[in-house]
Amino acid sequence: MRPYKHPAASELSLERVLYALSDSIRLEIVRQLAGVEVATCGDLDGGRPKSTVSHHFKVLRESGLVRTENNGTIHMNSLRRADIDSRFPGLLTAILAQHPTD
Amino acid sequence: MRPYKHPAASELSLERVLYALSDSIRLEIVRQLAGVEVATCGDLDGGRPKSTVSHHFKVLRESGLVRTENNGTIHMNSLRRADIDSRFPGLLTAILAQHPTD
Repeated sequence: MRPYKHPAASELSLERVLYALSDSIRLEIVRQLAGVEVATCGDLDGGRPKSTVSHHFKVLRESGLVRTENNGTIHMNSLRRADIDSRFPGLLTAILAQHPTD
Repeated sequence: MRPYKHPAASELSLERVLYALSDSIRLEIVRQLAGVEVATCGDLDGGRPKSTVSHHFKVLRESGLVRTENNGTIHMNSLRRADIDSRFPGLLTAILAQHPTD
C-alpha cells in the first residue's frame, strides 16, 4: 500500500486549515485526535460509511492537520499538532476551546 | 431596498464562521473590517468584480461575521466583533493573528 502524501509544515495554508475545520464531522475527528496519540479510522468514524469518512480524512490530510500512516492494513491517524502550532500559533487551541455548535 | 438578514448572535455556528474565513478574499475583507468601524463594499472589494464580491459578502453575512446596512444606495459593512467574541471567545483574535498564507 502506498504511503499517503502529506504537505510539509512550511506548505500549510491558513485557509485550507480553516476549511478543513469548517465541517462538523472533521472538527469532531480533530477533537478526538487531540486527546490521543494515534487512532484508527474505525476509532474515529462514529459509525459513518467508509466512503464518507475517507473523504473527510483526505481533506484533513491535505490541510496538514492529520497524518495517516499505514501499519499493515490498518491506517493510523495522528494530529499534526506541533506542525500546526508552529505554523499557526494559538489557532488550534482557540478553535478546540469552542463548544461544538452544529 | 430591503434590509439584509443577519443571524442572531445565539444562532452563530462555529463551522459556518470557519467556512466563511476559509477563503483568502473573505479573510482579507474581515482583516480590513477589523481595523475600521464601517466600510463600503467599494472600500473592501480590492478592485474585484461586483458579482464576486457580493457573493463573498453574502457568505460573511450568513456566517454572522459581517453586518451590512443600507444607507441610501450605499451598503455599509461592519464586523460583528462583539457577537463573535461573545459566542466564540478568542477565536477571531487567534485567526487574525495569523499571517496570510494564500
